[in-house]
Amino acid sequence: MDKKEEDSLQGYRGEAQKTLQKYGVKVWSEVKITGKKRIFEGIVLPRSELGDDKHIVIKLPNGYDIGINIKDIETIEEKGYEPAAYKLPEKTFPKDEKKPNVTLLGTGGTVAARLDYRTGAVIPAFTPQELFTAVPELTDICNLETRTIYEIFSENMKPEHWQKIAEETAKEINKGTEGVIIAHGTDTMHYTASALTFMLKNLPVPVVMVGSQRSSDRPSSDAATNLISATLTAAKSDIAEVTICMHETTNDPTCLIHRGTRARKMHSSRRDTFRTIDDTPLAKVNPLTKQITPLRKDYNKRKKTNKKKKEEKKKEEKKKEERGEEEGREVIADTAFEEKTALIYTYPGIKKEIIEHLIDQNYKGIVIAGTGLGHTPETLIPTLERAIQQQNMTIVMTTQCLWGHIKMNVYDTGRKLLKIGVIPGANMLPETAYIKLGHILGHTQNKEEIKKLIQTNIAGEITKREKHKAYQILQN
Amino acid sequence: MDKKEEDSLQGYRGEAQKTLQKYGVKVWSEVKITGKKRIFEGIVLPRSELGDDKHIVIKLPNGYDIGINIKDIETIEEKGYEPAAYKLPEKTFPKDEKKPNVTLLGTGGTVAARLDYRTGAVIPAFTPQELFTAVPELTDICNLETRTIYEIFSENMKPEHWQKIAEETAKEINKGTEGVIIAHGTDTMHYTASALTFMLKNLPVPVVMVGSQRSSDRPSSDAATNLISATLTAAKSDIAEVTICMHETTNDPTCLIHRGTRARKMHSSRRDTFRTIDDTPLAKVNPLTKQITPLRKDYNKRKKTNKKKKEEKKKEEKKKEERGEEEGREVIADTAFEEKTALIYTYPGIKKEIIEHLIDQNYKGIVIAGTGLGHTPETLIPTLERAIQQQNMTIVMTTQCLWGHIKMNVYDTGRKLLKIGVIPGANMLPETAYIKLGHILGHTQNKEEIKKLIQTNIAGEITKREKHKAYQILQN
Repeated sequence: MDKKEEDSLQGYRGEAQKTLQKYGVKVWSEVKITGKKRIFEGIVLPRSELGDDKHIVIKLPNGYDIGINIKDIETIEEKGYEPAAYKLPEKTFPKDEKKPNVTLLGTGGTVAARLDYRTGAVIPAFTPQELFTAVPELTDICNLETRTIYEIFSENMKPEHWQKIAEETAKEINKGTEGVIIAHGTDTMHYTASALTFMLKNLPVPVVMVGSQRSSDRPSSDAATNLISATLTAAKSDIAEVTICMHETTNDPTCLIHRGTRARKMHSSRRDTFRTIDDTPLAKVNPLTKQITPLRKDYNKRKKTNKKKKEEKKKEEKKKEERGEEEGREVIADTAFEEKTALIYTYPGIKKEIIEHLIDQNYKGIVIAGTGLGHTPETLIPTLERAIQQQNMTIVMTTQCLWGHIKMNVYDTGRKLLKIGVIPGANMLPETAYIKLGHILGHTQNKEEIKKLIQTNIAGEITKREKHKAYQILQN
Repeated sequence: MDKKEEDSLQGYRGEAQKTLQKYGVKVWSEVKITGKKRIFEGIVLPRSELGDDKHIVIKLPNGYDIGINIKDIETIEEKGYEPAAYKLPEKTFPKDEKKPNVTLLGTGGTVAARLDYRTGAVIPAFTPQELFTAVPELTDICNLETRTIYEIFSENMKPEHWQKIAEETAKEINKGTEGVIIAHGTDTMHYTASALTFMLKNLPVPVVMVGSQRSSDRPSSDAATNLISATLTAAKSDIAEVTICMHETTNDPTCLIHRGTRARKMHSSRRDTFRTIDDTPLAKVNPLTKQITPLRKDYNKRKKTNKKKKEEKKKEEKKKEERGEEEGREVIADTAFEEKTALIYTYPGIKKEIIEHLIDQNYKGIVIAGTGLGHTPETLIPTLERAIQQQNMTIVMTTQCLWGHIKMNVYDTGRKLLKIGVIPGANMLPETAYIKLGHILGHTQNKEEIKKLIQTNIAGEITKREKHKAYQILQN
């Protein structure tokens, strides 16, 4: 949203606008609204383009927004007007040669805003100065560069966005940054994390995705602690993978570092919404003590990029280039993605026409989230057979259970599906398998190669053994 | 599979058959097979119609099946032949007037077979005598009648099967049984549990679904403990709801009783695969101590059906009938279901054509498993608007997070979807919402009524408050 749009009655129109004008109240005014039945105190919020002209929306002290019908309003009293509270002064971000340089790329989402612009606030973008003001702890950790790539809701992310983010991330890394933070909406963060994992080949430094489940103007906001933890991970950890950094629990400030290919958003609103499924998270980060505690050792390690090493490396690479070798420490954004790839969760009663539709639309691949060990209703099998054998489609099986491995040789249905050429997807999450398949189909049409790549663990998306403790347990 | 098909070389053909004949070995023979590299000992299993003619399949002492290529076989030695071990003698099931009468309806699945017929065994059906022989503890609990309705893999269940199971269940209850156990494959057990919940109106006694993740010839089988726990619940608990009875953990024998509308299969192979999502299970059952421990109180209570009450009730009902009143304790199988209902999990890159296809196919309703608080990519919104406003379709929003409530008035995308008429599905599981919507659309076309019913908690499918402890925690 453009800053110029921030007029004093932003978004209000018709009767609601008249009411505000009548009492001389503006957006961001602190008000006491006397209603016919109740008294409300809070801050007048701007409205979005979708708002009606019948309500005034205020943010209550508890952080929640409430819309008050103007019919029910008897008087409004302005108690204060401090928009500055919502537009913190921009301090200068100190540059310290001894600290690592980290880049924060903004793509949108709650964490990227000081106020949640989706609930009416107006500051979706941010500069290093703004961030420093909001979260001064960041200066202790690193020199932070920030850049906004997108300002979109993550539900609107598409493969083309993943490609652009991968390219921009690669650019930053190849310019020498020692870690990248990607601020992203939480809805589809795990899809993007998977996509970046497969697209960024030869990653030498951490790429940490971070989001927020509560906008930072809410008392319970997780934005600052998530951001500090993500920054610590990007600047100091040795995890050269694409990860997701979000809260571990609802109570503690600690965050978990989830491997991008094994994470999933598992709760619509809790701040500990992200979970590593069927595996152990990579690390735990305490934003207060600034401690990063690895929970395992089997991850890709950071390639040191201090200046000395860099210079040596450059010389070495130059020599290699002269010898015609292509090896280098540069990350490659290998972003080809077949958009004619689908993800279908099956269910009892699903009609074969849904698969036929995908055949008609010339799809190249489908990931099925089937039931149990990897089953579909048998009514789909002839259509799937036609898709594979006549249309040359790739069908990959995953389980809608989310936890556990596919084993298609146990029951008849699985065996039938194997026989027609469905590829078992091991214990890949359906969402990860979808992205992996799109990525593979963007690179090859060779049946054998596709099958081999699907079944090969490339980036932690397949685990050999299920860890007993990686299953959910009951707290009851 | 018909028992008549059980010939001595069942399922073997071609070279494999010849090999067995050569060594005078039959299906169910205990054998020692000397291979070129290894020696195998086990029991020759029958083969399914899909088997090739190159392998002999034996069950190893550890419970696993292995196929041995006849090319690698040097000799086979028959060490014994005891098909009786797999066809236990049928003892008489004692009838005790003091014990409650319970009915077990078989529909298929691993628990309904003494041997897993899907891996090659031939006894999918069972009689009370067979069950008694296999699980003698059952006679301590109740008088058990058993009846086979279907013998199908649960992935092949369709609405028509739910309807038949609901009708047969109602029939048994209205004949006076004090509890019904439904043996069912685990893959789609939660879908069937939801369907039966909505279809069985005025349920007076427990209906307990039970399955097994390991066939009962495996050392680690959960079939017996699950069956005992389910029988206890059906015979003795006061939970007059459709529930799922499966293991609580991988180690303990205890089972949990999950409400049918809030359970989901969450692991492809663990025996504690079923989980109550975003809510507390109803009870815990210990099959050793025979103790049923309620974990909450807010469930529908059993209506006593002992003979005295029954007679009184009958008189009363007769009087009511004479007065033209229809009230009674009879359960009603209200099975109407709109088959033109779909369940769609969205994902980044999903094309609007998938929704257009459903419009073209004259679908009446779609449950969307969207992201986060209830979002879809905005590219779908115009198509969804057309579906609702021109085609009169019902679109219900749920979250693919599985845990947590839908809140569509928080972000712009949600508000846009609300504005075009998408109905927020509270915290219904996507699978439950699909069945509820099909059930509602089977009964009414009235828009307002549909919306009201979707948003009303009918059978525990919507919980008002999220229980903090109902979220998954980490064991790491």
